[in-house]
Amino acid sequence: MTVQVIKGHIVHAPAFGKLDVLENGCIVLDNGKIAGVFQDVPEQYKNALTVDYGDRIIMPSFADTHMHAPQYAMLGMGMDLPLLDWLNTYTFNTEAAFKDTAYAREVYRALAREMIADGTTRVCAFSSLHRESTMILMEEFENAGLTGYVGKVNMDRNSGDVLTETTEESMRETMLWLDEASDRFDHVKPILTPRFTPTCTNELMAFLGKLAAERKLPVQSHLSENTSEIAWVKELHPDCAQYWESYAKYGLFNDRTVMAHCVHSDARERKAMKDNGVWVAHCPDSNVNLISGTAPVRQMVKEGVRVTLGSDIAGGALLAMNKVVTAAIRASKVKRIETNWTDDFLTVAEAFYLGTTGGAKFFGAGEGFAAGDELHAIVVDDADLPKPAKKLSVAERFERAVYLMDKHNITAVYSAGRQVK
Amino acid sequence: MTVQVIKGHIVHAPAFGKLDVLENGCIVLDNGKIAGVFQDVPEQYKNALTVDYGDRIIMPSFADTHMHAPQYAMLGMGMDLPLLDWLNTYTFNTEAAFKDTAYAREVYRALAREMIADGTTRVCAFSSLHRESTMILMEEFENAGLTGYVGKVNMDRNSGDVLTETTEESMRETMLWLDEASDRFDHVKPILTPRFTPTCTNELMAFLGKLAAERKLPVQSHLSENTSEIAWVKELHPDCAQYWESYAKYGLFNDRTVMAHCVHSDARERKAMKDNGVWVAHCPDSNVNLISGTAPVRQMVKEGVRVTLGSDIAGGALLAMNKVVTAAIRASKVKRIETNWTDDFLTVAEAFYLGTTGGAKFFGAGEGFAAGDELHAIVVDDADLPKPAKKLSVAERFERAVYLMDKHNITAVYSAGRQVK
Repeated sequence: MTVQVIKGHIVHAPAFGKLDVLENGCIVLDNGKIAGVFQDVPEQYKNALTVDYGDRIIMPSFADTHMHAPQYAMLGMGMDLPLLDWLNTYTFNTEAAFKDTAYAREVYRALAREMIADGTTRVCAFSSLHRESTMILMEEFENAGLTGYVGKVNMDRNSGDVLTETTEESMRETMLWLDEASDRFDHVKPILTPRFTPTCTNELMAFLGKLAAERKLPVQSHLSENTSEIAWVKELHPDCAQYWESYAKYGLFNDRTVMAHCVHSDARERKAMKDNGVWVAHCPDSNVNLISGTAPVRQMVKEGVRVTLGSDIAGGALLAMNKVVTAAIRASKVKRIETNWTDDFLTVAEAFYLGTTGGAKFFGAGEGFAAGDELHAIVVDDADLPKPAKKLSVAERFERAVYLMDKHNITAVYSAGRQVK
Repeated sequence: MTVQVIKGHIVHAPAFGKLDVLENGCIVLDNGKIAGVFQDVPEQYKNALTVDYGDRIIMPSFADTHMHAPQYAMLGMGMDLPLLDWLNTYTFNTEAAFKDTAYAREVYRALAREMIADGTTRVCAFSSLHRESTMILMEEFENAGLTGYVGKVNMDRNSGDVLTETTEESMRETMLWLDEASDRFDHVKPILTPRFTPTCTNELMAFLGKLAAERKLPVQSHLSENTSEIAWVKELHPDCAQYWESYAKYGLFNDRTVMAHCVHSDARERKAMKDNGVWVAHCPDSNVNLISGTAPVRQMVKEGVRVTLGSDIAGGALLAMNKVVTAAIRASKVKRIETNWTDDFLTVAEAFYLGTTGGAKFFGAGEGFAAGDELHAIVVDDADLPKPAKKLSVAERFERAVYLMDKHNITAVYSAGRQVK
């Protein structure tokens, strides 16, 4: 691969709330990296290999910064159950099944393919506690063309009978897994994954914090998802004034940390996230399905907290990230209703930013289609969407696609500079 | 067509909150009408023509009791605009385009086909104010296999420049349309459709009320969708203590009336609906998208108000009614959050009831797969959904299908006893 020109209508979000629309523009790639976005092909690239997508829209692909990969097997199930019953009836039993590596292979292959088909190219995923199946998940993500992080889950207490490990097992398996996983794949790397404070002993947390610091590893976990969880953490860590401190005291709360939910994070907790550079994975569909609450997303953005979007399958029942983007818009409108129509809602451009650039930055990318970044993009064919009453602008078509597109509308996907669909 | 036996797993909701699951059961049809639902084929039907759907699930098809058919052309658009700008920028301009009958034909044909593909077989739809295009909509619904009601919209004030009719035109066109439409189609009939109180003069309302009484016609309109609309109606009808009275005083508020939204209907308005037998079309996705509020659905059901579900495209961006069913569940969970976790949410069985039987009863049907009713059903093939960790019960598969199924999972559709997909 050397220089390549990709032509079409280019739409991306180079800043929160800003949408750049270039009709009949082009992206020039140099060895898969973005050399620039241009209206016309610059003179020096006139003879480069060109792919012309014509009237189709080229936009950034999505980043899903929080999901439980094994729970793909239970997508859309158990939604009538309270959180603890849901965990005990479905979640822990489902994850326990991933001891079976053949089953893991089958489910993870289907998951990876569906994610690429839906236009998700960056991911931060929880596996189960099983080391071997975690390696399989990483391999299937890599093979399908996904990039990002996968974590073997650590959980050595309060995890039910079917899905638990001793502290010693958890530490040993984590070390073995890191040895195997760290350099095995080009695009999928390990991330430390204490499930959440209630399921991890202090000893395990201390071990993980030390490991994170020594090896500069990223960390993912859950924070302030619902009120009873917060109360539980308070009981477990009476020395911590707030939930986040139960991570911070072990060195698990810094600018390599992504924390899912943060629904009930008050001003002090939000300031701690901002000051520590922690990333928030807002999971709007999960927060509604599990009746967790309505996250203060706009408030977090305004205060400078780094907000990204997660599908959180299977608390969330939507895997396709364009649907999670619209779920974030809807959740923000619910927040507006809850605040007696005072909080602003997220516009399409704003929510799209969170689902693309917002997440992509956690993986080291720049803003929108930034020069120097490897290309992560989808090509959208909206020709089969309802015929409008007048010719639509590309910006209107973009907005409609975010709401309506399905995997069959996504006709090409680029991930880390390679075409993977 | 004489006697026919349809075999498969039968799931239906014969009462609010009740789910009947019959594994490997059958439905016997006599000339398209349900003779009964049985575990085994009764002796007298052993030799009847049999269609065996094997491991697939047969469930009632959906009823969409509120939608604006021309707004299909603007699905998923303008969602960042406040209601009035949205109406003026998109809605009225889009509807105005339906003066062009060739355009109407194209859009309505696509709409009708998509609805059948999604498993909606009963509909109560607003057309535009155009008589000819309204006839085209009825014809396209009829030809695609839909059943129910379509209304030429009446709007003789406050409707913008592009989309208005004089009082005299509105009355004349309505009479002409009724002459043409009343007996033209077997399955699609006219419904009187004053857009909403602000767009209809008292003279027009009085005319429609008289017509509804004389011809025993059904009526559809909007009620208490948002607070500024309610205030506006109060100004227009200072004699009415509440919004609903502006319909009631003209005889447009009875057991043949379906009122969309009722988001802000208080106890007195809800009692009026109950006492008058009015049907509520709850439109959960629209209420969120347009930031209208969170309807008190469970409260209405508990009080005995008849609740049905509507897509309300294009205030709603979801046409497929299984997605509207899950939107109703999600909205009810938001209500639970809003009420500090005191209001119960809608279970899958409850919301499915509202989207099937709840609406079907407006069209004269009984509960679930009731004997004597023409069959309205879909056949769901869930084989391509994620592979679960253990064999699922049919009830679990049903729940998952309600959340995840897409048109490609719906492999057959029956409407009024005929197979239409």
